[in-house]
Amino acid sequence: MKNKLLVVGTMAYDALETPFGKIDRTLGGAATYIALAAKNYDLDCGLVSVIGEDFEEAHLQLLRDRAIDLSGVETIKGGKTFFWKARYHNDLNTRTTLETHLNVLEHFEPKIPKHLTTPDILLLGNLHPEVQWAALQQMQNRPKLVILDTMNFWMEHFRPKLDQVMAEVDVISINDEEARQLTEQHSLVKAAAIIQKMGPKYVIIKKGEHGALLFYNQHIFCAPALPLEEVFDPTGAGDSFAGGFAGYLTQCGSVSLSHMKSAIIHGSAMASFTVEQFGTANIEQVTPERLLQRLKAFEQLTKFEIELE
Amino acid sequence: MKNKLLVVGTMAYDALETPFGKIDRTLGGAATYIALAAKNYDLDCGLVSVIGEDFEEAHLQLLRDRAIDLSGVETIKGGKTFFWKARYHNDLNTRTTLETHLNVLEHFEPKIPKHLTTPDILLLGNLHPEVQWAALQQMQNRPKLVILDTMNFWMEHFRPKLDQVMAEVDVISINDEEARQLTEQHSLVKAAAIIQKMGPKYVIIKKGEHGALLFYNQHIFCAPALPLEEVFDPTGAGDSFAGGFAGYLTQCGSVSLSHMKSAIIHGSAMASFTVEQFGTANIEQVTPERLLQRLKAFEQLTKFEIELE
Repeated sequence: MKNKLLVVGTMAYDALETPFGKIDRTLGGAATYIALAAKNYDLDCGLVSVIGEDFEEAHLQLLRDRAIDLSGVETIKGGKTFFWKARYHNDLNTRTTLETHLNVLEHFEPKIPKHLTTPDILLLGNLHPEVQWAALQQMQNRPKLVILDTMNFWMEHFRPKLDQVMAEVDVISINDEEARQLTEQHSLVKAAAIIQKMGPKYVIIKKGEHGALLFYNQHIFCAPALPLEEVFDPTGAGDSFAGGFAGYLTQCGSVSLSHMKSAIIHGSAMASFTVEQFGTANIEQVTPERLLQRLKAFEQLTKFEIELE
Repeated sequence: MKNKLLVVGTMAYDALETPFGKIDRTLGGAATYIALAAKNYDLDCGLVSVIGEDFEEAHLQLLRDRAIDLSGVETIKGGKTFFWKARYHNDLNTRTTLETHLNVLEHFEPKIPKHLTTPDILLLGNLHPEVQWAALQQMQNRPKLVILDTMNFWMEHFRPKLDQVMAEVDVISINDEEARQLTEQHSLVKAAAIIQKMGPKYVIIKKGEHGALLFYNQHIFCAPALPLEEVFDPTGAGDSFAGGFAGYLTQCGSVSLSHMKSAIIHGSAMASFTVEQFGTANIEQVTPERLLQRLKAFEQLTKFEIELE
């Protein structure tokens, strides 16, 4: 029997503008990217989300083709799918949100089918902390690992509930600015120590083109991002990272520090695929061969020999 | 016989303000930091620079105590040593230069003693390209490796001469913003490719707290910076990096890609020492034991296992 990953997160349509092009409506959402990345590993993956009647059958089929269990995806009659429109600036490190239509997401109350309530790993994608909390409450057993993704908006407006969720998770994945905002500390080392006291033993701080840091007790692990000639579209990079990270750990069935480190590299590899094309175009096309080649590139990128005495 | 490193660069007094304190006059200059870092390796190190009569005997002694050959350091009678005053902002990633008094540096023409003109490695520290060029012309033989450090000021005002120097060197060490400025390319991968065509086969791009990248042909190596609780004073970090890099390679007597990678880690270790205290205070106190411990920390920080079947 395969190990089970449950993903709770958004499914969406995105409109994106980057210096390289423009797309009016493309498949998006945290859960979509997470599931597409995670399904490169040997596992059972269930998805909990909400969509409107406008969600295209072809996009559902795309996920079903990868054996992603969509029984936890609720379709709201007469509803419209969450829509997000953003423009990236020239350096691609910053973006402006032009439109956010929550649509069916506004009143989302996750109802998790019983057969999905015993995952080995639960990944709470970037969502309202009330939704994350509600999902957590529906677990029959405490999963082996609970991973939380969140963002500045929830920190600013729903901090007490977010604190409650954070106290219950094992891993948090946020970016550097969010870590600083959450803790009011510039030093990421100090920020991570404070976040660890809030709940998550493992703190992952994503630094975009500068890679990611993993903090666990006194250990720090530093993963680079793959230096690319061009980043085409950063949308979904963080979610793909989370999907690769969680997918690899679910496949392993282990949450040792050593596996956590490898999982960070797998997550970084998935993120590197996603940013190479618009939307989900590239993460849909990952094969075991391409993944292996990319992992080797990460090894090449970081391996060095030092004579220790 | 030991391998020989020759360093051409500034010796200075600095006035520094950081969020953690203020110091009115402290030993500084690129050549000072480079030599202090490089002397942690088994090599003969000569220094070519210029100082005024105000340069303190105790500071010369500090360098002599480390067996640094100062016969190439010219003292200008009645002259004053180069002085630089700067204030770092709260995040320590940016700084404002408050005063620059070139003093004896203004008319510096390097005269390299004959016994110093056959180094294995020549390190041209951040200086006027005319001075770097003049030093290069005085070499009796082409050194095994010539390393160039430079900065945006020289790019903006003395580009033709800088181009001439760049065409003659093997390694260039600059920061990310400078690489972008030099090439008008945002992508560091593209920028490095362009710089390689300008001369240096090896391009090192320093990213401060995000580490450093080494580009060589199609190879990329990525070294992290050591995540620190506090960066106390970033002054001299880049020079210490260059000193550790050049010092290690001089000791090795090899310039293979594999040794280059290790040298990047040694440079990063030296930079991590320097930023932990004001000015040269910490880089003066490095011991083989502390260095070994720091190298192990870098290994811990980056090592991971992936099953490449």
